[in-house]
Amino acid sequence: MQTSSDTLAQNPLDLVLQRVVDVPSERVWAAWTEPALLLQWFTPAPWKTVACEIDLRPGGIFSTQMRGPEGQEFNNVGCYLEIVEGRKLVWTGALGPGFRPLSKAAQSQAPFLMTAVIALEPLGAQTRYTATVLHGDANAYQAHNQMGFHVGWGKALDQLVALVGTA
Amino acid sequence: MQTSSDTLAQNPLDLVLQRVVDVPSERVWAAWTEPALLLQWFTPAPWKTVACEIDLRPGGIFSTQMRGPEGQEFNNVGCYLEIVEGRKLVWTGALGPGFRPLSKAAQSQAPFLMTAVIALEPLGAQTRYTATVLHGDANAYQAHNQMGFHVGWGKALDQLVALVGTA
Repeated sequence: MQTSSDTLAQNPLDLVLQRVVDVPSERVWAAWTEPALLLQWFTPAPWKTVACEIDLRPGGIFSTQMRGPEGQEFNNVGCYLEIVEGRKLVWTGALGPGFRPLSKAAQSQAPFLMTAVIALEPLGAQTRYTATVLHGDANAYQAHNQMGFHVGWGKALDQLVALVGTA
Repeated sequence: MQTSSDTLAQNPLDLVLQRVVDVPSERVWAAWTEPALLLQWFTPAPWKTVACEIDLRPGGIFSTQMRGPEGQEFNNVGCYLEIVEGRKLVWTGALGPGFRPLSKAAQSQAPFLMTAVIALEPLGAQTRYTATVLHGDANAYQAHNQMGFHVGWGKALDQLVALVGTA
């Protein structure tokens, strides 16, 4: 059971999902950083995450491969930027592994570029979960918003809670 | 006096300048991280660096403003990615402060995007200095190469040595 649900927006180019979840922070952290767990919750059903690579260090690869119900595939390759064990995870799709800039082709193919900041605040058996997604301009923000950021990230978080929650 | 001068290329999308310089590594580090010093060597003459902002932490701003002999101005705004005190400094122009992706306008205005890795290996009163510049595709590599990477970065390094060297 969720005890609070909220969406906040600080910077007008940020999309924010904040919620207190009935999962200890260590389990939320595990769900975000262990491929075997991430595969099970990361993509809102009926889409699935069918592959995932995690090299948990600044510049290390974070890639996911998503598959839709009709077989459509969508690959995301990015890298981690900042890792504070159990508390904060920052990754971006705007740089590849090793911090390498994207090719022009990859830049133009991406519907938008984003950096995600996942912050976890331990609250005993619960966690205040804050996902802040940074965009480069209003078009990128709008594209992600209209693609259904709040529903999509919220549904993925529901799946995370169902997977690793203690309730 | 320089005791060795070399250029290397590992990844075909990287430009590399490696040289052993007659400067202790702490002074090379200071030249890269203290604005008052950086302003004096960073841009090959007759261009000058007229402003500089350094917030030395992952996601912190690294910006420089260059001015040409005819008053042309060129602003670079990026952020730091990885900082290993005295040893390694990584920054990129492909993300803004706070790791925010660039706007589409900034992406298309930039002649190319790059990430720079400055590695310092202390050798007593000398330092093995390795600057590796990562590009996203062959066009970006070529553009930077033809703009005169080796001459430009080499000349800037000469200026750094003249400024903080002990010889």
